[in-house]
Amino acid sequence: MSELLILHEYAASGNCYKVRLTAAHVGIALERREYDIKKGETRTPEFLAEVNANGRIPVLQIGDRFLPESNAACFYLASNSPLIPSDRFERADMLRWMFWEQYHHEPNIATLRFWLRHVGVDALNEAQRVQIIPKRQAGIAALEYMDRHLARRNWFVRDHMTIADICLFAYTHVADEADFDLELYPAVIRWIERIMSDPRTISFESEEALALDA
Amino acid sequence: MSELLILHEYAASGNCYKVRLTAAHVGIALERREYDIKKGETRTPEFLAEVNANGRIPVLQIGDRFLPESNAACFYLASNSPLIPSDRFERADMLRWMFWEQYHHEPNIATLRFWLRHVGVDALNEAQRVQIIPKRQAGIAALEYMDRHLARRNWFVRDHMTIADICLFAYTHVADEADFDLELYPAVIRWIERIMSDPRTISFESEEALALDA
Repeated sequence: MSELLILHEYAASGNCYKVRLTAAHVGIALERREYDIKKGETRTPEFLAEVNANGRIPVLQIGDRFLPESNAACFYLASNSPLIPSDRFERADMLRWMFWEQYHHEPNIATLRFWLRHVGVDALNEAQRVQIIPKRQAGIAALEYMDRHLARRNWFVRDHMTIADICLFAYTHVADEADFDLELYPAVIRWIERIMSDPRTISFESEEALALDA
Repeated sequence: MSELLILHEYAASGNCYKVRLTAAHVGIALERREYDIKKGETRTPEFLAEVNANGRIPVLQIGDRFLPESNAACFYLASNSPLIPSDRFERADMLRWMFWEQYHHEPNIATLRFWLRHVGVDALNEAQRVQIIPKRQAGIAALEYMDRHLARRNWFVRDHMTIADICLFAYTHVADEADFDLELYPAVIRWIERIMSDPRTISFESEEALALDA
């Protein structure tokens, strides 16, 4: 990896943590640029023109090219590593869980965490407040689905860790911050412990604290 | 491709059309099994046990293995074809648009199409009804983002069609069915025409009619 890699991020975001966690697991160093999304720092004319016209983080910068979308950045970093299966079906099955994460998991569990922990219920608008219960129900359904899948296996795809595990781990292991009771999902708990016990796994919280100190 | 390929689907779904469209572009024959989602045919004990515990279509069956999530099925079918770039950055950039589609495009444009055309406004619950305006705004933002991107290029990734184009085409070319005015996005219109003029592009509507006749 000869090109300079820069992660444009907001460290408290689980989507950004995914990218740092993937980089740590494959041993790639990332330079980090922090933006405070609550202060609108990803909506400035400079950010929109130079980093991401969509106004969102994370964005992985590779030399002079920019790659938005957390799961795509993980795929880029893990290319040619054991975190992406070489078998055709397994690779597609890994992506299946990553698409599922973006559609069924993140919009419920991550959004509730952001609303309840970072925005605060009182600051939500009516369209958001009325979604709390449907998102709670969909988040529970997502955790139940993961628990049933993991009851019979150690990892989401076949018998080894892939970036599907990393992408799902990011918001699942802090789901209690969105008031989900993880104790109800014993196979998920064991899978979280499996990932936490890997020496390459960096902590979300300490990285967050690190960024706040910076 | 020696294994039997079966698409478990609901033909009126754009997510299912993506998979048929990819198969048509790479010249792979699919056997089709139709389920009426409005009659709950993907929530039967048999479907949940044998096809997808998530109760959703499409699911691509490859021999005795099952692959849910439309974009993952497209990735499987297009593997080793020119529809997936071999370059590391381009492949990740293609996935970036496919993740973006599932997060920013489908939940707004496809969901509004389903609500307005298939369910009907009067049958929506309060939590759904209050989301019509936010989803309308987010759908417009998605189309504007696509239009700005396509103003400078013919395809989403580099200079050739990939499955990112196919996955985005499915619900974009019928966005008028969700009351979006495509005439406002001239680069999107030209891109739609570019895909429609490809002789490998099968029609959504005629496939739907075919399934209804079956």
